[in-house]
Amino acid sequence: MRELSEAKPIILKIGGSVITDKNGELAARTEVINRLAEEIGKAGVKNLIIVHGGGSFGHPTAQKYGIKEGLKDEAQKVGFAETHHVMTVLNGLVMDSLVWHNIAAFSIASSCCVVTENGRINLCDDTILKSLRKMGFVPVLYGDAVLDAKLGFTVLSGDQLVTYLAQKLGASKIIIGVDTDGLYNADPKVEKSAKVYTRLTLGELEKVKSKLGGSTASDVTGGMLGKISELAPAVEQGIPVVMVNASKANRVYKALIGEKVEGTVIEKE
Amino acid sequence: MRELSEAKPIILKIGGSVITDKNGELAARTEVINRLAEEIGKAGVKNLIIVHGGGSFGHPTAQKYGIKEGLKDEAQKVGFAETHHVMTVLNGLVMDSLVWHNIAAFSIASSCCVVTENGRINLCDDTILKSLRKMGFVPVLYGDAVLDAKLGFTVLSGDQLVTYLAQKLGASKIIIGVDTDGLYNADPKVEKSAKVYTRLTLGELEKVKSKLGGSTASDVTGGMLGKISELAPAVEQGIPVVMVNASKANRVYKALIGEKVEGTVIEKE
Repeated sequence: MRELSEAKPIILKIGGSVITDKNGELAARTEVINRLAEEIGKAGVKNLIIVHGGGSFGHPTAQKYGIKEGLKDEAQKVGFAETHHVMTVLNGLVMDSLVWHNIAAFSIASSCCVVTENGRINLCDDTILKSLRKMGFVPVLYGDAVLDAKLGFTVLSGDQLVTYLAQKLGASKIIIGVDTDGLYNADPKVEKSAKVYTRLTLGELEKVKSKLGGSTASDVTGGMLGKISELAPAVEQGIPVVMVNASKANRVYKALIGEKVEGTVIEKE
Repeated sequence: MRELSEAKPIILKIGGSVITDKNGELAARTEVINRLAEEIGKAGVKNLIIVHGGGSFGHPTAQKYGIKEGLKDEAQKVGFAETHHVMTVLNGLVMDSLVWHNIAAFSIASSCCVVTENGRINLCDDTILKSLRKMGFVPVLYGDAVLDAKLGFTVLSGDQLVTYLAQKLGASKIIIGVDTDGLYNADPKVEKSAKVYTRLTLGELEKVKSKLGGSTASDVTGGMLGKISELAPAVEQGIPVVMVNASKANRVYKALIGEKVEGTVIEKE
């Protein structure tokens, strides 16, 4: 699947909970977006691909209209249009910041090149993505409302897209920017003594997963479990995942330049 | 080239000079955008495709960095990114209005599916466009900064895209919304007695073209000549073009529902 003819990209995922206030609606954290753009510019990594999530833009709208579950009712169509639209608005804020920080970043709406089947990517035209990379641009993609061969339409998560691209392009590393310090051995909101794993192998992760799965089903844990399941196949293929707190200054920067950074590294062995 | 298996779409082009103030910079006419969204919603045409221009969003940015002429200098790269970005911002305003008027409109960035060669479309992946149409969505495209196989990148005009799509999809009609009442027999800014042609054949247009070409080379005339040259191949294929003043209320609405309307109709014979 991996195309060896090209340089290996680093894929940076920026969580929706980092760049938006998930308790609000359409509430962007522009100061965080600007700080991250500055860190990305300062790192100056070549072969970078950025993917961001939807946070309080995509999720409430998608939920309101049941977009993830597919087309069942004509009235959902405007909801599908609206979900894509609010994602382009959030993406616009990210692009604005990147471009003003002098980064040659170019947005690619996932809905313009991806079609899923029952929620999983089964078609992805990467002609433009490849050309942009070859020319030295930083492609920026995002979780989006996309067409689905079986469901009519659905929601594509940024995490699924990250793993797909990492596997297809043979990424050297995946950096996951979240709003916690990494993977904890217990829910830090419940247990004060919870500690961050600095490094986990896939085998160790499997044990942690079941442990986490048995804990209180808070949103953060649920979100993390879903994230881990999506990312595991990339790790299995030998692509390390570095999970850092993108809400804190310089964590993403350090991860980008390969410096030691607080967070959780997940590796195959 | 035309695919007969599908219903014939109407393609509506909305000029950048209609939805923006070309004398400003990044100056959108949101009240005009809202009125047009209302007219489009009221008309409720099935099989509609919308294409809009760049006006004071795309053009000044593209000019500043010489994007149309292609990649000659590394410094242009951020300019290319910026040109695409400002176009997505203008498109966002259009989409916002369409969605709030309950239209299931879905934006497709031209740069995500078109690659040109020396400025002419030579690749256009229309997988998503076709699926969207089949499902009853209104695809919305726009003039954009696109990748070019020879030049690296360039500017794709909305007019070229309109003719390309009209020919490929076998459109029933092209409606061109401009900021004048149609094609004049002289420059209306110079000659008070200038009159609008109500109907022109391609042969008659050829004569008018040379006449207009010989008149004062004002921006409007230059713009019109370029527009006509782009549209002529579609007319040649039997697709009528209706040019109306989209800056005036109900002209686009009447053209959409096929009612008699002030403007210029261009037909093959």
